[in-house]
Amino acid sequence: MTKSFSQFAPAYKDRIDNRLQTIVNQPNHQKIIPAPLAGAIDYGISNGGKRIRPLLVYMIVRALHTDLAHADATACAVELIHCYSLIHDDLPAMDDDNLRRGKPTLHIQFDEATAILAADAMQTMAYEVIASDDLLTAEAKISIISSLASASGPRGMIAGQIIDMDAETRQLSATELENMHRRKTGDLFAFCTEAGAIIGAASAEITLALKQYGYALGLAFQVKDDILDVIGNAEVMGKPQGSDIEQDKTTFVSSYGLNAAIAQLEELKELAISSLAPLGEGSAELIALAEFVVSRDH
Amino acid sequence: MTKSFSQFAPAYKDRIDNRLQTIVNQPNHQKIIPAPLAGAIDYGISNGGKRIRPLLVYMIVRALHTDLAHADATACAVELIHCYSLIHDDLPAMDDDNLRRGKPTLHIQFDEATAILAADAMQTMAYEVIASDDLLTAEAKISIISSLASASGPRGMIAGQIIDMDAETRQLSATELENMHRRKTGDLFAFCTEAGAIIGAASAEITLALKQYGYALGLAFQVKDDILDVIGNAEVMGKPQGSDIEQDKTTFVSSYGLNAAIAQLEELKELAISSLAPLGEGSAELIALAEFVVSRDH
Repeated sequence: MTKSFSQFAPAYKDRIDNRLQTIVNQPNHQKIIPAPLAGAIDYGISNGGKRIRPLLVYMIVRALHTDLAHADATACAVELIHCYSLIHDDLPAMDDDNLRRGKPTLHIQFDEATAILAADAMQTMAYEVIASDDLLTAEAKISIISSLASASGPRGMIAGQIIDMDAETRQLSATELENMHRRKTGDLFAFCTEAGAIIGAASAEITLALKQYGYALGLAFQVKDDILDVIGNAEVMGKPQGSDIEQDKTTFVSSYGLNAAIAQLEELKELAISSLAPLGEGSAELIALAEFVVSRDH
Repeated sequence: MTKSFSQFAPAYKDRIDNRLQTIVNQPNHQKIIPAPLAGAIDYGISNGGKRIRPLLVYMIVRALHTDLAHADATACAVELIHCYSLIHDDLPAMDDDNLRRGKPTLHIQFDEATAILAADAMQTMAYEVIASDDLLTAEAKISIISSLASASGPRGMIAGQIIDMDAETRQLSATELENMHRRKTGDLFAFCTEAGAIIGAASAEITLALKQYGYALGLAFQVKDDILDVIGNAEVMGKPQGSDIEQDKTTFVSSYGLNAAIAQLEELKELAISSLAPLGEGSAELIALAEFVVSRDH
């Protein structure tokens, strides 16, 4: 019988939560992080997120029959990158959000300067945690760092954020909208699958299949976000419903209409799942993850 | 005869300026950087700075009789880290500076959101440029990345910035002031020497000597900055003189008085130069760099 996402996800989530805590609070480190900065970083990583990206790394490494310990550093790194980007996104000069998942955003809880610096530090820590990993070879670590920088940098996630800012001032075309989400979310999801493939020493065929799965999953994640903004429950989501409409933002729903966006979401799910064919039975958890991404209510 | 800093520095400066340009403008890269972001990154790295940190990397690699090409990626990386930190430092929520070296700061020239994201991207690019270098071994690249992250992260440069913010609200003790500058400037200078030692395959003895030189040089750089803020020429410096006093900031001059700060500067220079003894004749350029750091007028 197939296990559902809610049955196997908590163990991975506990694992990543523990590992992230360990990185921030290393009492034996030669130098200490100043208390106000450590507190802000701790707040920034303990934000009750779904941890989809690290889960994706873990699930792929397990699907490739490799010890999860080899995935810990990469799982932490991708979550640190994701969390730092949210903190900077929430700043007054960017999206100016006071709440994230029902809690005050970092610059509200602390102050803007601390939010800027804590997020900067989280980006640094992402590279530090991979570089200092004891289990991976230097070659594997360099491949993963290269791939992470490419996915999260000015040609990847940050490119997506710049296009996103533009989307608040004018209507994007359908191609521009998809390009924005491929950069803003797809690249980091695809990184998770690529890094998992490196750690699990996957064949070129499997690596390509996983990367296709990652892009489809990332895009599905965004389409679902856009749909939830229109039909979601504000209390469950921890943020006001309809904020995209209010900001007059181009979304999959505003571009295609709600029904077409729902159909597109279903197509992306099918594409993600069919990409996994070369993995055979190992793909059960990844299929469940795709099901979760499209059916989630927040 | 000993060559002076102004005789050999321009060649290194041209080299780093060219290499930085190449990183930002790679027309053959698979993905492109969106134009507004590329423009902002270009502005952020073309700020007319002295390029002390990359010069330090190059000079050490040359002192160790190693091809400068092996130092290019590291030299670019440390300058990208330095430039990103200046851009975030200048933001309204931080130091709120409109001018740097006589030019509008990045958030004035573009806007705050672009400044936040361009600097984020520059941090990413620092790790990318090292990871994608073709000349260094994977082991050397991992050592350099690890050292860079440690020097520039929440236990290094960013720790120094957090302490610096605190210094604007209360008087720091002499120990706290020195600790702030060791983190804020010394760690990145020491990184330059450590990375140079890795690239040049220096012995443990030489590596330690170089690191001591780096810390002394970094601290001397800060003491000189504090002195220039009191007795410097605003036009030459490109920023208003006396801004530390106006902000009631703890500096070496406010803590010890001008004469004692000048004496301390001389001591640090002597410490830096005497640290270089194990290098023998190879240290000529590094001695001239120390002379320049303490005698510069901006």
